[in-house]
Amino acid sequence: MSKLVIVGTVAFDAIETPFGKTDKILGGAATYIGLSASNFGVDGAIVSVVGGDFPKDYISMLENKGMDIEGLEVIEDGKTFFWSGKYHNDMNSRDTLATELNVLADFNPVVPDSYKNAEVVMLGNLHPLVQLGVINQMHNPKLIVLDTMNFWMDCALEELKQVIAKVDVITINDEEARQLSGEYSLVVAAEKIMAMGPKYIVIKKGEHGALLFHDDDIFYAPALPLAEVCDPTGAGDTFAGGFSGYLAKTRDFSYENMKTALIYGAALASFCVEKFGTERMLNLSKKEVHQRLQQFKSLTQFDIELT
Amino acid sequence: MSKLVIVGTVAFDAIETPFGKTDKILGGAATYIGLSASNFGVDGAIVSVVGGDFPKDYISMLENKGMDIEGLEVIEDGKTFFWSGKYHNDMNSRDTLATELNVLADFNPVVPDSYKNAEVVMLGNLHPLVQLGVINQMHNPKLIVLDTMNFWMDCALEELKQVIAKVDVITINDEEARQLSGEYSLVVAAEKIMAMGPKYIVIKKGEHGALLFHDDDIFYAPALPLAEVCDPTGAGDTFAGGFSGYLAKTRDFSYENMKTALIYGAALASFCVEKFGTERMLNLSKKEVHQRLQQFKSLTQFDIELT
Repeated sequence: MSKLVIVGTVAFDAIETPFGKTDKILGGAATYIGLSASNFGVDGAIVSVVGGDFPKDYISMLENKGMDIEGLEVIEDGKTFFWSGKYHNDMNSRDTLATELNVLADFNPVVPDSYKNAEVVMLGNLHPLVQLGVINQMHNPKLIVLDTMNFWMDCALEELKQVIAKVDVITINDEEARQLSGEYSLVVAAEKIMAMGPKYIVIKKGEHGALLFHDDDIFYAPALPLAEVCDPTGAGDTFAGGFSGYLAKTRDFSYENMKTALIYGAALASFCVEKFGTERMLNLSKKEVHQRLQQFKSLTQFDIELT
Repeated sequence: MSKLVIVGTVAFDAIETPFGKTDKILGGAATYIGLSASNFGVDGAIVSVVGGDFPKDYISMLENKGMDIEGLEVIEDGKTFFWSGKYHNDMNSRDTLATELNVLADFNPVVPDSYKNAEVVMLGNLHPLVQLGVINQMHNPKLIVLDTMNFWMDCALEELKQVIAKVDVITINDEEARQLSGEYSLVVAAEKIMAMGPKYIVIKKGEHGALLFHDDDIFYAPALPLAEVCDPTGAGDTFAGGFSGYLAKTRDFSYENMKTALIYGAALASFCVEKFGTERMLNLSKKEVHQRLQQFKSLTQFDIELT
């Protein structure tokens, strides 16, 4: 098993969906990534920042899930990053109601010395310069996975391109892939993004699954069709955590193994959306994960005899 | 191998897409279904109607593909059904520019006596009463597959429900499944549609693939990600033709075999969209089909060890 460095937000979220509404609850990309990766028992470290208002219980919970929190800076007289959003009826789009950067505004990430030799780095969605700051502290990582979003394409494209040039895998959604590449076809978009640096492109399509591109190969991980999606918040981060967590555990960074990692990511994300916030990820048994992986096998595996 | 009865339009289409524009070319649901099913060497019969303006060469072509055309009525002083449409830039939506029913307005389908004992019936998109007329002429078919569209839900819902109650498999797209069931979740929609009669529901999601529902089981056939889609016309019919053709060939109507049939349908549909109209389907080798099925395997198959 290799060490896994996770950078991203640790935050408060307030979420409204057609199924209900929450007050300020635990959220943030690094939180979801860490909870998801913890299913593999990896030795992970969270690099992030919170304010003095962040409950000690939440920090203990992350530690109990096996996350090192030396790199989780606590600014006692600051306030934790807060995001609030409301999902539309189709759950595929949302309005951001509030974004309060707070302590995140001046975040200067520090990777603990004992994790600078980690083999896997998972860069959760944050300002590209913060992501770059983490990369620069690492000693020869074997695999860097980048998650980002359209917001940075709009307001920090050049910095984002610098990060993209340095990573092995990028995960973005379909619209972002189109925006970044200027191409409508995802196949052509993936080719263009590969030319920017990453050897592997993961394009997330929400309820339509995710595609993994590498050279001329394509692999497709479906999303599990669900009778009810309660709250999509954190699904992409949970997917990234499952993907990078599985790779950190197995230390096999081949395309073949990434296919399996993609399925793990999709399976874990399918749990995340079943309840509000992190609730489902906090209460997830190994047996449930195995059963869901079996569902993914039933969903996708077939016999074909070529006659 | 069992006999296959195909009912649907045989038509002229005029198509405009961002890649070009055609004059009146060969089209129609039964045409695409027949061309697709012909890849399995099935003993198929086309039940349809054309006018005196329909080229004899097209009829010979269908015969050469192994289709019986005794049930293809030619009304010498009538005109063939004509459809014209224009696709938008994303290729997922289109405007109908013209629909001239012509000889289709009074179509009274006649199944040839020698095909009334066919085991498989593929009801291509047509007025539900025409579809019902075909069902009523059949002697104890083993499998009836229905394709339909939102148009009939809007203007002939009661008749459509009568047909749905009599079929084994229904294939519709995601929006149509939502309209028919009044449910947004495709899982819940499929449950409600199963309660209307069919034991198998195929929900087509275009570039996002297709789902097969049966009891509590779900199978997912992806669409092949393509660098370029030239013309989506006929893709759904080609899918239905591959699905029903494979089942007619193998005479195994189990859920397990339907999974393979779905993959064949998706593979054949992926060729259809590569060129305008039927062009690609008219020039398709067994070797090309096998190569594409291999691509579907690479796209979807993975190894997972549950630890």
